[in-house]
Amino acid sequence: MNLETSDNGFTLSIEGRAILTHRPESPCLFVGKGHERMDMYRGNFDIEDYVIERSPLTHAEISGNAIAFSTAPGQPTRVVLTIKDNHILFDAKDPAINRVWLRLVTEEPEHVWGGGEQMSYLDMRGRRFPMWTSEPGVGRDKSTEITWKADVTGKSGGDYYNTNYPQPTYLTSRRIAVHVETTAYSVFDFRNADFHEVEIWAVPERIELFAASTFVDLVGQLSSRFGRQPILPDWVYGGAIIGLKDGENSFTRLEKFRAAGVKVSGLWCEDWVGLRHTSFGARLFWDWQANEQRYPGLKDKIKDLRDDGIRFLGYVNPYLCVDGPLFPIAEAAGYFATDSEGKTALVDFGEFDCGVVDFTNPAASAWFAEEVIGKNMLDYGLSGWMADFGEYLPIDVNLSNGIDAKLMHNAWPTLWAEVNAKAVESRNLTGDALFFMRAGFTGVQAHCPLLWGGDQSVDFSRHDGLVTVMSGALSSGLLGNAYHHSDIGGYTSLFGNVRTAELIMRWSEMAAFTPVMRSHEGNRPKDNLQIDQDPEVLGHFARMTQVYVHLAPYLKALSQEAADTGLPAQRPLFLHYESDVTTYTIQDAYLYGADLLVAPVWQAGELARNLYLPKGDCWVHVWSGEVFDGGADVSVAAPFGKPAVFYRQGSSFTDLFAGLAHL
Amino acid sequence: MNLETSDNGFTLSIEGRAILTHRPESPCLFVGKGHERMDMYRGNFDIEDYVIERSPLTHAEISGNAIAFSTAPGQPTRVVLTIKDNHILFDAKDPAINRVWLRLVTEEPEHVWGGGEQMSYLDMRGRRFPMWTSEPGVGRDKSTEITWKADVTGKSGGDYYNTNYPQPTYLTSRRIAVHVETTAYSVFDFRNADFHEVEIWAVPERIELFAASTFVDLVGQLSSRFGRQPILPDWVYGGAIIGLKDGENSFTRLEKFRAAGVKVSGLWCEDWVGLRHTSFGARLFWDWQANEQRYPGLKDKIKDLRDDGIRFLGYVNPYLCVDGPLFPIAEAAGYFATDSEGKTALVDFGEFDCGVVDFTNPAASAWFAEEVIGKNMLDYGLSGWMADFGEYLPIDVNLSNGIDAKLMHNAWPTLWAEVNAKAVESRNLTGDALFFMRAGFTGVQAHCPLLWGGDQSVDFSRHDGLVTVMSGALSSGLLGNAYHHSDIGGYTSLFGNVRTAELIMRWSEMAAFTPVMRSHEGNRPKDNLQIDQDPEVLGHFARMTQVYVHLAPYLKALSQEAADTGLPAQRPLFLHYESDVTTYTIQDAYLYGADLLVAPVWQAGELARNLYLPKGDCWVHVWSGEVFDGGADVSVAAPFGKPAVFYRQGSSFTDLFAGLAHL
Repeated sequence: MNLETSDNGFTLSIEGRAILTHRPESPCLFVGKGHERMDMYRGNFDIEDYVIERSPLTHAEISGNAIAFSTAPGQPTRVVLTIKDNHILFDAKDPAINRVWLRLVTEEPEHVWGGGEQMSYLDMRGRRFPMWTSEPGVGRDKSTEITWKADVTGKSGGDYYNTNYPQPTYLTSRRIAVHVETTAYSVFDFRNADFHEVEIWAVPERIELFAASTFVDLVGQLSSRFGRQPILPDWVYGGAIIGLKDGENSFTRLEKFRAAGVKVSGLWCEDWVGLRHTSFGARLFWDWQANEQRYPGLKDKIKDLRDDGIRFLGYVNPYLCVDGPLFPIAEAAGYFATDSEGKTALVDFGEFDCGVVDFTNPAASAWFAEEVIGKNMLDYGLSGWMADFGEYLPIDVNLSNGIDAKLMHNAWPTLWAEVNAKAVESRNLTGDALFFMRAGFTGVQAHCPLLWGGDQSVDFSRHDGLVTVMSGALSSGLLGNAYHHSDIGGYTSLFGNVRTAELIMRWSEMAAFTPVMRSHEGNRPKDNLQIDQDPEVLGHFARMTQVYVHLAPYLKALSQEAADTGLPAQRPLFLHYESDVTTYTIQDAYLYGADLLVAPVWQAGELARNLYLPKGDCWVHVWSGEVFDGGADVSVAAPFGKPAVFYRQGSSFTDLFAGLAHL
Repeated sequence: MNLETSDNGFTLSIEGRAILTHRPESPCLFVGKGHERMDMYRGNFDIEDYVIERSPLTHAEISGNAIAFSTAPGQPTRVVLTIKDNHILFDAKDPAINRVWLRLVTEEPEHVWGGGEQMSYLDMRGRRFPMWTSEPGVGRDKSTEITWKADVTGKSGGDYYNTNYPQPTYLTSRRIAVHVETTAYSVFDFRNADFHEVEIWAVPERIELFAASTFVDLVGQLSSRFGRQPILPDWVYGGAIIGLKDGENSFTRLEKFRAAGVKVSGLWCEDWVGLRHTSFGARLFWDWQANEQRYPGLKDKIKDLRDDGIRFLGYVNPYLCVDGPLFPIAEAAGYFATDSEGKTALVDFGEFDCGVVDFTNPAASAWFAEEVIGKNMLDYGLSGWMADFGEYLPIDVNLSNGIDAKLMHNAWPTLWAEVNAKAVESRNLTGDALFFMRAGFTGVQAHCPLLWGGDQSVDFSRHDGLVTVMSGALSSGLLGNAYHHSDIGGYTSLFGNVRTAELIMRWSEMAAFTPVMRSHEGNRPKDNLQIDQDPEVLGHFARMTQVYVHLAPYLKALSQEAADTGLPAQRPLFLHYESDVTTYTIQDAYLYGADLLVAPVWQAGELARNLYLPKGDCWVHVWSGEVFDGGADVSVAAPFGKPAVFYRQGSSFTDLFAGLAHL
């Protein structure tokens, strides 16, 4: 980095690209105090800040690599920034500071991506993004009736920025990336033409900067920084993971799938722990061990399945219900987060209370990894699970490490991922056992082998439907999350919104071109169409699993590439076409590896797709063999079973891709 | 006022009550800069502020009556406050300042009232109130479907603080009042336990302070400050003003009202100017003169009516449609606000464009008063009108006085009121011609003889129904607006929400105990029940007009009292019962003068009212004669036609009130 003084100020650059510019009349740093109101309701947050002070630190004195900031010459230093390697270290001299605003250079036109897993907008320019892990929202669009109803009934409508996985890291079309090392609530504000502003509700440890000559290199750097996932387990290539939660009937239904030609790699039964019946309907029993009533002889059945080439997957989250056998054990050992009176903090999940295992206590983490995930799950025979609810740490509990829960809330997903990863590692199953998370934050990449895109509504809506999965995959992929997948058919069915056959089919078509295909019965299985209830849907699904299996050699190569370079399987078009700026804002199509371009139909009633093919290559439509020049909009037919997918002419996988047309 | 220094700071008091306390660690003044986004859509505003700087002015140096504030000793003075009489004068030494936050002392428990005409909350404590004149909102409650639909379809749902008439003035239970002299956007924030905070998007001219030993005295002081209305015209006491907009058929329908025993003082036809047909339905023709097509021979008919003891009222607003005869005259004379290119600024009102007469141009104001209101309206025979749309000044027009339209927007209602008042005065009709406004701001009291409560929805909803009229009357009454009334039956019928007979009857019952009874056909007359369509409703309405007329001697006394003392006709209970703190938050009942207590039924399906009777008097139920002790909750039957009304035992109007039972 280069620190250059001028005009009473300075410019800080990295590899020739300005990051900070400071002048007394346009300071880069503001500090002050705020008093926040944060209300949590079942994972949804209502957050409001009252800013008491926001002082521009107009005066900067440079000595060596240190910049001392104050409000004016002669005034006390409030913050010292030290430039070290590619880091800007923060040292607050005023302990009262709990708000920091840093203005970073932007140069028009600049596109901005990242921010964790962003479901609504891949290019974040022009908008403001709070970084706070939470429920993703139902509807996520204040103009829709579903969002309004979700807001009114459960404070859960959400908005474009709500995500299970925020991360205060962005990269831009200037081939730089900025990471804020903090777990505090923060906001990335890209609304201004003249600067980007990062707001942090704490003094951050540091800002980390990255610069590269290509996007591919930049993404590789970020993957190296945040951690890299193992290659995909071999068993995954066998087909789809079928999600059923129908007790022992799940096994019977699985046979129906297989009989219809569905390629199956796993059976996922989140109800493996048994059910609890509430007035809202059946819920899982949050005590993480196999339930003999719901799944008699499960252990043996898992073995039989495995002999048949199919793995069994379950479900777990960091909570323990008060009426399960694990609760008293954890409580006696002091493994739970506590309330203001020092008692186990109980969280109401709707007619049942739970304690939250305190992962800041190493003994509690080790216990959960060994006794719960290790013994109850891995030793029992599970090959994977949904590791849910990483975004739920209440902000009013006391934790073992003594740090404010408001500062640990964002850290929780990564701690939760680590507990899961350590359990897997303890059985030498890294790269074989596959757990998947929707929650995330900085560093989750090092522990979580697979993201899932959260709880989309069972529809084609712009901000909560199928299309949002692509944005989630692409944004998180840029930050080093190589593997992403989603609930085929979506999850959330509320207020009479139910799945259509069309939705399931379109979702399957997309999922076949992602690292993992997995179905889900949704939150209301009985009210919604299931894949095995409709022969057309089942047949279509079978076909798409065959497509997925056919592509296994390619996916294996992508997985190896991810392990080697940090490149994600699903990639924004611009990653490989940086000179084609038209690609910079595309979020409803993606490159699957460097050689496939996938443009799923994501709106109802469409039988064709319009899309843009990037400049510099020719593209072969996989179903017709028709060749298109890049650099233009094209329209292709997209009947059911034949999504708009192209391969790059000259790909070394040409034979494989050409074979798709004969499936 | 008393300025006392101590501990590096000071305390400013008025008559022993602390107003400001300042210490370096808890400063009373913050200044800085902001950059606002203000989007206007048909009178509704979407406003967001980006605060660039908010610096605590921790250092205060006192010399005489002047206090020089800076961020620290030795730093440049940014603001000087000068204490003069009961004013705090602001003098900014830094021209860049466009945001000021002043913290004022609060002492628990403190109740806060005022803020102009507040429709949702009479006691403002615990909430935040922007001061910006706008459409009031449809629904005004984000949890209701109507609000959501209005937001989605027209950005018009509004919220609890939206009002046509804000005023940056509050009074508190400490018997003090604070007025901020500014027309800039401002915010009163009463959410904090330790201070009240006033935010102003400009450097205000001054803060004015008031202190009294009683609420009655305090309200009298405010009325003297802001202006006092003339007494009510004698003709008003003759009965209700009947609102019809049915062309010449209005006259026929009026006879039906009279034949049913309705006491009538006026006929109000807003369509006197003729109609324009749009795809949304019929709109008024915004060129302010009688329309011969819709009202043939109107001038003679007005004369005939008047001979019969009935006055005729019309409608006007500050806009002129481009296709009317007045537009070219005003444009040629340069009377319109202009756009960025210097041309007449055209405002789209939905399929027709208008120019806005620039009331900062004295010649334009005089022309509108003389040529439009004087000649076309008063000389034509009108005795009153709705003076609408004072809250609509666009914020992006250029005005003759050179002041930013964002600073004139709040000033507009008062300028508009003044134009109307001057026209009336020019014909020596002050106290006879009666115009009524929903828009208001500081000083409107001096010009507008009658407020109307705006456009309630045609329902019983908490934030946009009948009950809001009371809060509007009481809050505005405390600031010197002696006369308030409302559209009987409400106005806004949208999304299938229509009037019920019950609603009209309950509204009539309340209106009989207000200074003016006036009916309105609403925004969709054909979709909604009209008073003359239902014999029961018509009969009930006739009875309530008889109640109104019966009370005329009392109302005359109230009007004289208002002229003498500034006390409003409708009064919060606490105004006369200050030692009874239970009264401090009551907003669904009111004193009508000192001697009547009115508790309208404001919810559907209720046939009784629970209410609190204030301590220190006995209260006689007007319909039964039953006597109740004050200081307790009571419940009385409230069948249709007999609203819960009580008179104070010992009132000098006892005979009159007792006579109500015999109507």
